[in-house]
Amino acid sequence: MAKQVEFFFDFGSPYTYLAYHQLPKIAKAGNADIVWRPILLGGVFQATGNHSPVEVPLKGKHLAVDLLRWAKQFGVSMQMNPHFPINTLSLMRGAVAMQLRSDAEFHRYLAAIFSAMFENPRNLGLAGEVAAVLQEADFDPAQFMAMISEPAVKDQLKKNTTEAIERGVFGAPTFFVGNDMYWGQDRLHFVQQALA
Amino acid sequence: MAKQVEFFFDFGSPYTYLAYHQLPKIAKAGNADIVWRPILLGGVFQATGNHSPVEVPLKGKHLAVDLLRWAKQFGVSMQMNPHFPINTLSLMRGAVAMQLRSDAEFHRYLAAIFSAMFENPRNLGLAGEVAAVLQEADFDPAQFMAMISEPAVKDQLKKNTTEAIERGVFGAPTFFVGNDMYWGQDRLHFVQQALA
Repeated sequence: MAKQVEFFFDFGSPYTYLAYHQLPKIAKAGNADIVWRPILLGGVFQATGNHSPVEVPLKGKHLAVDLLRWAKQFGVSMQMNPHFPINTLSLMRGAVAMQLRSDAEFHRYLAAIFSAMFENPRNLGLAGEVAAVLQEADFDPAQFMAMISEPAVKDQLKKNTTEAIERGVFGAPTFFVGNDMYWGQDRLHFVQQALA
Repeated sequence: MAKQVEFFFDFGSPYTYLAYHQLPKIAKAGNADIVWRPILLGGVFQATGNHSPVEVPLKGKHLAVDLLRWAKQFGVSMQMNPHFPINTLSLMRGAVAMQLRSDAEFHRYLAAIFSAMFENPRNLGLAGEVAAVLQEADFDPAQFMAMISEPAVKDQLKKNTTEAIERGVFGAPTFFVGNDMYWGQDRLHFVQQALA
């Protein structure tokens, strides 16, 4: 059986954007498959009593500086989204829906949304902006709206989120190698060691 | 002028314990002096709206695992203190007092208290335990009590803490190289780069 690393992610987390770009390199070096696990970070925060770092103003201010240091280290093009924080419920349902559809669609969707979140930031809290971003990436916005309204999609996102919390997840990005949990893009070297 | 790295610390922070052991190596490699800045982390939390990570139970649970991974990476002997969190007001006043006294006393005190906090954990929330630890390290507990009651010592700790907050500190360990702030033992590689 191939080695695996599970990646619990939400588009709303800027550190997750960094991990989205960095994890594939680490997985490849470790000869491991990434198991993509879309979750709703807001649901995780609510259930665990955790909060977004930007709720502490000085932490939020520092985060903007810190993110760019990591972006430079990882060689990732990044801009903090000025509309942050953005409600990601529809976007994460979209990730689940695309994942149910095909691997290729899923990855094309991830690239489009992550880029519109933290590379060339758009206000993805607005349905119209989401539709525009989808269209630019050759997705059909009307079809997207239908997909994310499916009960199976909504349920799967809830299930992923509940499972994450049950396994100890309280933030994002979170990685698992077997039962061992790693939280943060700043722990990817531990993930790398776990896969070695 | 020699390069400098400022180190804002509180004995109550387990990640600061790791930084206490790791920073001297980084400062030495970067040919920099460490400027030791004792602060009261509880005061920082109160002023900035930040909280101890252990206030989120799943985060606290993960912290115990994460700390040991870093201790292994840094080659530091560490045990989580079962009496955590511990009120460090007297201990931090002690750090200020020792610093005013002499460099040698200050470093002997740091070693004794950090070790009793996270190497061979004692309940340093109890005055009797603090006295015992001081005595074992050849300090006079009665003299210590007199020192930490001096207004100049109390004021200096307050001043350090206020300055830290004014400069953007919201947690510990925090490092400054010039005006650039770095938060966390997991950012020591950025400190290293800044000193290079």
